[in-house]
Amino acid sequence: MIDERTQVVIVGAGPAGLLLSHLLHQEGIGTILVESRDREYVQARVRAGVIEHGAADILRRAGVGERMDREGLVHEGIELRFDGVGHRIPMTELTGRHITVYGQQEVVHDLAERRLADGGDVRFACGPAAIHDIDSAEPSVTYTVDGVEHRIVADFVVACDGAHGAGRPALGEAVTPFEKVYPFGWLGILAHAAPRIHELIYANHARGFALYSMRSESVTRLYLQVPSTDRLEDWPDDRIWEELALRFSLDGEPWEPTQGEIFERSIAPLRSYVGEPMQRGRLFLAGDAAHTVPPTGAKGMNLAIRDVDLLARALTEQVRTGNEEALRRYTDDALRAVWRAEYFSWWMTTMLHRFDGDTPFDRRVQTAQLRSVATSRAHATALSENYVG
Amino acid sequence: MIDERTQVVIVGAGPAGLLLSHLLHQEGIGTILVESRDREYVQARVRAGVIEHGAADILRRAGVGERMDREGLVHEGIELRFDGVGHRIPMTELTGRHITVYGQQEVVHDLAERRLADGGDVRFACGPAAIHDIDSAEPSVTYTVDGVEHRIVADFVVACDGAHGAGRPALGEAVTPFEKVYPFGWLGILAHAAPRIHELIYANHARGFALYSMRSESVTRLYLQVPSTDRLEDWPDDRIWEELALRFSLDGEPWEPTQGEIFERSIAPLRSYVGEPMQRGRLFLAGDAAHTVPPTGAKGMNLAIRDVDLLARALTEQVRTGNEEALRRYTDDALRAVWRAEYFSWWMTTMLHRFDGDTPFDRRVQTAQLRSVATSRAHATALSENYVG
Repeated sequence: MIDERTQVVIVGAGPAGLLLSHLLHQEGIGTILVESRDREYVQARVRAGVIEHGAADILRRAGVGERMDREGLVHEGIELRFDGVGHRIPMTELTGRHITVYGQQEVVHDLAERRLADGGDVRFACGPAAIHDIDSAEPSVTYTVDGVEHRIVADFVVACDGAHGAGRPALGEAVTPFEKVYPFGWLGILAHAAPRIHELIYANHARGFALYSMRSESVTRLYLQVPSTDRLEDWPDDRIWEELALRFSLDGEPWEPTQGEIFERSIAPLRSYVGEPMQRGRLFLAGDAAHTVPPTGAKGMNLAIRDVDLLARALTEQVRTGNEEALRRYTDDALRAVWRAEYFSWWMTTMLHRFDGDTPFDRRVQTAQLRSVATSRAHATALSENYVG
Repeated sequence: MIDERTQVVIVGAGPAGLLLSHLLHQEGIGTILVESRDREYVQARVRAGVIEHGAADILRRAGVGERMDREGLVHEGIELRFDGVGHRIPMTELTGRHITVYGQQEVVHDLAERRLADGGDVRFACGPAAIHDIDSAEPSVTYTVDGVEHRIVADFVVACDGAHGAGRPALGEAVTPFEKVYPFGWLGILAHAAPRIHELIYANHARGFALYSMRSESVTRLYLQVPSTDRLEDWPDDRIWEELALRFSLDGEPWEPTQGEIFERSIAPLRSYVGEPMQRGRLFLAGDAAHTVPPTGAKGMNLAIRDVDLLARALTEQVRTGNEEALRRYTDDALRAVWRAEYFSWWMTTMLHRFDGDTPFDRRVQTAQLRSVATSRAHATALSENYVG
C-alpha cells in the first residue's frame, strides 16, 4: 500500500477534472488527479463539440483558450429545418454572442498538455477508483495498479468521473434522483468530408431527427435519431448516407451531405439525470458525475466547465480563509444553471425528435412550435440565449 | 314547409355568427341567422372574457367596439405564480399591446343589439338546424318551430354553431380530426366580489392550477384545475374558497381572494380539436365549430372573431366579383392563426397544470420553464406576443 496526501484529490480526467486541477493549481492548491483510462483513450474519446460563450470565457480566463480561439470555428447562427424548409436563427444578431465549435477531445488535449507542462500530478491508467470516508475530515481515494494499492488522503474529494464512475454511488442514499430516458438514441458518425455548409442544421423530419455539424474544415459530424434497440450493424454506410439525405430534404428533394470515409461511429442513448444534492461531507460532484443532459442542447461539456468554475472558487475560499459558506452553497449555485440546461435540452429534444406515441395533433403542435421559433424574433431570441449560454 | 332564400345562411348566434352577419350586412350581403336557443340563454351563457388586441381591432373596425372600449378592463400584464412567488409579465411594455377583459356574453349582447337595430334577420329559439346539399349550388338549412318546417336556401352556408352543432358532422368523412383530451377540467365560478387585485394570476401549485380573473369591478371569476371525474356536488363553497387560497399561496401562506356570493359555477373539460379542412363545397365552418382550444390561452373567442373576419372578406369578394380564390384559400388562411393558438394553448396548459403521470423530473423541468419565462425578457416577450395577439 502506497500512502499519499494532497489537498484535493480529483477522480476523472475529462474536461471537468482537468480544468479543476488546473484552476486549483493557479490558486496554489495541490491536487492529484486519478483517471482510470490511459491518456490516448481519454484524448481520443469523441464527445461534445459546441462551446458556449460563458464556458469559452472560463477557458480563456484560465489561460487555456488560445488554441480554441485559433482553431475553433466561430458560429453565429444555426438552421432549423422542418417541413422541407430551412430557417436560420441568427443567434449572434439576437444575443450579441456566438458559439465555438471545438471538439471536447481538443479541450481535453489542451488541458492535459498544460497540466503536464505545469508539473501537475495527473495519473492516467489507474483503473477504477474507490472513494472513502467522505463524512470524515480525512476522505480518501484508492486505486490499484500492478497489484499495488494506492491511497490518497485529502481535505476534499471531487468526482468528475461521469455517469458511471465512483462519484454518484459514493453520495449514498441521501441523493434524490431526477431522471428521464428517451425512447431513442443518436447514431453519430465522423467522416473525412469537407462540410457542405458552415452552420449546424437541426432537422425535424417525419423519419426522425437529424443533426448536421462539423469539427473542422475537413471533418463532418452527423447524427441520426434511431430506435434505442438499433445496433451499429443495422446501419451500413450506404444506409446512413441515404437516410441523412432524406432527413435533410429541402422542398421534397433529398439534400446530400458531402460524403467521405466514416472513421468513427457510435450509438448513444438519450437521457436526462440530475442528482440532488451534488455534494456530501467532503465529496463534491461535477459535470456528468452529477447530471446528464441529452446532447440536443449541446450543454454537457458546458455545464461541466461551469460546475468546476464554481467549485474552484468555493474550494479556494475555504483553503484561504477557512470559510465554508461557498462550499455549502455549491449545490444550490450549480443547480440554477443545471436545471436551466435540463429544461433547454428537454425542450430542444421534444421539439425536434419524432416520438412513436405522438398523435397527429402532437405533430401539428410540434410544427407550430417550430414555426413560432422560426418567425418570432422573441421566441428565436429565447432559444438563442440558451444556446449561446 | 316555409321556403325562403338568402345569400348566406348562418347557423349559431354566438360571437362568430352574429359578427359575420353584421360584417356581411355592412357589405350589403343578405343573411339569415338561425340559433337553436332563445336570446336570453345565449346572452347569459358565460364563456371567455379576454379579448386580444387583433380581435378588439376587428370589433372596433366593424363599429361594435364602443361599449367594450368604455366598459372593458384594459390589462397590461399578467402574473405567473409558482413556487410561492409571483412574477409579473409586463405584456404591454414588452409588446406595445394590451388585452381587454370583457365577457363573451357582453360581446354577444352588443352584436345582437346592433343586428336587431339594423333590422337583421336573427332568429332565436329555432331548435336544432340541419344542413343540406353543400356540394350543390343551392345548399340549405332547415329547422322546425311549432311543427312547421322552415327551409332556407342560400348561396353559402356558414356554421358557427360550436363543437356540438350541425356544422362539424356536415363536413363528412373528408375531414381529418386532430384532437387532444386533457385528463382534467376547470371548475369555474363567478362571484359577487370586488377583485382583490387587478391583473390575472396564473398559478402553478402542487395541488393543481388556479386562475384568478375578474369580469368587472364587482365580479370575480376564478378557476380551479379539477379531475375530469369531479362533479359540482364535490365542491361546496367552503371547499372552493379554501382550495383557491391554498393554490394562490405566497411564501407558504394562503392568499385569499375576496369572497362573495357564488352566482354561477360549472365544470368544463379541457380539450383541443382542429378539423381540416374547415370547408367543403358551399359550407364553411368558423369558431368552435371548426376548432376547440383549452381556455388556458384565452384564445377561443378570439379565433372565432379572426375566422369570420377572413370569411366575411372572402364571401364579399365572391359576391362582388365572382372570384372564389379567397374562399378556396379560407382554410389555409385561417389555419395559420388556428395552429399558432393551438400551440400556445397547449404550451400554457402543459406548463401550468399538474399532470398525474408527471415524474419528479417533469416537475422540475416545468418549474425551470416557468423560471425561464419569468426571468428572460425574450421568453416573456414570446409568451406576451401570443397572449395579446
